[in-house]
Parts: sequence; structure tokens; C-alpha cells
Amino acid sequence: MPKIVDHEQRRTEIVYALWLVIAEHGIEGVSLRHVAAAAGVSMGRIQHYFGTKDALVLAGCTALVGSAYDDYLETADADPRARLRHVVSQQIPRDDAGRIGVSVWYAYVAKSINHSAVRQVLAEARRGAEEECMRLIQAEHGGGADSTGREAGDDVDQAALEQARRLLALADGLTLRVLVRDLEPAEAVAMLESEVGRI
Amino acid sequence: MPKIVDHEQRRTEIVYALWLVIAEHGIEGVSLRHVAAAAGVSMGRIQHYFGTKDALVLAGCTALVGSAYDDYLETADADPRARLRHVVSQQIPRDDAGRIGVSVWYAYVAKSINHSAVRQVLAEARRGAEEECMRLIQAEHGGGADSTGREAGDDVDQAALEQARRLLALADGLTLRVLVRDLEPAEAVAMLESEVGRI
Repeated sequence: MPKIVDHEQRRTEIVYALWLVIAEHGIEGVSLRHVAAAAGVSMGRIQHYFGTKDALVLAGCTALVGSAYDDYLETADADPRARLRHVVSQQIPRDDAGRIGVSVWYAYVAKSINHSAVRQVLAEARRGAEEECMRLIQAEHGGGADSTGREAGDDVDQAALEQARRLLALADGLTLRVLVRDLEPAEAVAMLESEVGRI
Repeated sequence: MPKIVDHEQRRTEIVYALWLVIAEHGIEGVSLRHVAAAAGVSMGRIQHYFGTKDALVLAGCTALVGSAYDDYLETADADPRARLRHVVSQQIPRDDAGRIGVSVWYAYVAKSINHSAVRQVLAEARRGAEEECMRLIQAEHGGGADSTGREAGDDVDQAALEQARRLLALADGLTLRVLVRDLEPAEAVAMLESEVGRI
């Protein structure tokens, strides 16, 4: 299906251009003209694929979340602890491309205060990541079938939820420090790996 | 010195107006005209107090950090653990004003990728908070004079640094989740207080 692949690639190229514009000018600085120039396509083509500027901005947020999820799916063959390590450390920016991605993400976070669709995408992404981490923690511990008997199930769930929440919050906080260049990426990754090791 | 107080109040009012404009339109959407309208003052007065738009934007970042620090100074009479609780939980947004402040903070974080002065202010703020938390943790533990002798000093410092870093990163990560309304402020605060309790 070469035609479909082609369309997807074009959409992806436009989304990449959008991210560059956001990193440079902020979400309020996005215009179809800016993005068209950055992508090297016509404004008409962007409208054809995404409709309005607002729809494009929202698609950029969904694509940011989707891109992280696609990376995660590639770890399907790894063991739960390795997958957990991936989830918590993948967002730490290690190069300029990583910094641009994280900066765009924070632009969306700031925007979420007066854009409920963006807020919903970000909240669902965080909630989804938390649930996935919780599942990985439970899988690592043998699915909650611990020696204290069946009734401990709820406590085990609650403990796994708290561990997942702590890990992800820690990852978000360390990401911020690496972005403002107050912490080396390697220091942040080492700290997260050591946390995962204690799970 | 009524005149000085007056000037400070005027500067503060302009900075508040700037934050509202950033929360609504992003940093790229800031113009002297917008801020003047929001503050109910003339553009000339803003230029008189802050100079250029760029200088005003940077002053808004410094003021955001300074405002958190002023709040912290008011806890001077409290014990180290209570002060630690204040540092880590003060940024969790509990109302609309808190959400605006945090959203403006994330706008600056996103902007830091291509604005080195903003990045420096944010990095110094985070580094300063980390050092202060480290001091509070050491004070809580009796200044590192532990039973294992003097040579353990470096290890104690390293442990306190790691605890401070973990606490602050956790606070930043939970702040983000409260902002996108995926977590209740009370849940975030409870988690941070329990974390401080374990120090």
C-alpha cells in the first residue's frame, strides 16, 4: 500500500515541522504559514491533512504522546523490569532532538491551563503510563500472588500504584532539570535506574 | 519610605499582569500593549520600570522564583522537617491562582530551550532549592554528626543530596499531574508529606 505509507509520511513530516515551530516560537506562535515554510509544503496541503490550525496543534500533542508509546511497544520482548526502565528513562533528553521534544511537551503542559482538549490528552497519557508501570511492577513481582494470601491483593495493587506514581513523577521532575541543564542526562538516568532496581 | 513601597507595588502589579498574559497567550504572545491593558497602566510606565519587552519577560521569571523564595523565608521559625514540607509542597496548585503560577512556570521551562537567561534563572532556582533541602535534611539529622564517625561526612552529604534531589523531582512531577487535573492536590501533598516523613 505505497499510497497510504506516503500519506502517513507526509503527515509525520508536517507534525515534525510543527514541533520545530513550537520549540522556536511557542504554541501561540504557530501559524499554518510558519509550519508550511518549516515543512517545505504548501499551506493547502497542511489544511488538507489537518484542517484548522487548532486541529493541527492538537494533532501535534497526540502525536507526541503516540510517538513515546510507539517506542515503548518496541520493548515488547523485554522483561518487565527492562520495560519499566524504558518507560521512566525514555523521556530524559540526551541530545538536541530530545530537548526539542521535551520543550514542546512543556509548551503543551503550559497550554493545558486554557485548552481542555490538550489537558485531556496529557492527563490520559500520564494516567496510561501510570497504569502500564503498575502492570509491569506487578508482573515483576509475580502478578501479586504473594505469600500473604489472596486478601492482600488490594494492598499489593495500592503499593504498585504508589510505586508507579513515584517513578513517573520522579522521571518528570528529573526531565525538567536536565532540560534547564542543571543536571546531566546520565545522572538522571542513573538515578531512575537505581529506583527501578529497588522495585 | 512611602515612595519606594509605591514603586515596588507598581512593579509587582505589572508582573502579575504579565503572568496573566503569559497564562492566557504564552510567552510569545506577550506584548507591552497586552501587559499594559491587563495592568491598567500605560505602556510608557512599563517601559519606565522594566525597559524592553524581553527585560520584562525575564523579570517575570526572576519574580516567579523570588516569590516562592519569599514564601519560604516566612517559615524561618519552623523546624527543619516542617520547612522541608513547605519547600516540596508549596508549588502544588490548590486553586486557580496556583494553576496560573504553575502554568507560567512551565511556559518559562519550555522557553528555556532557546533563551539562555531564562534557563539560567530556572537552573539556579532548582539548584538553590536542592541545596536548601539538603541543608534542611542534614539539620534534621543533627548536622551529619552520626555515630559512624567523621569520615562518613561525604557519604552523609551524598545521601542528603540524593534525598533532596529525589524530593524536589517528585514535587515537580506531581505538580505536573495536578496541573493537567489527573491527580488531586490533596493526593500529591499527602504523597510528598509521607516522603518527607521518611527522611
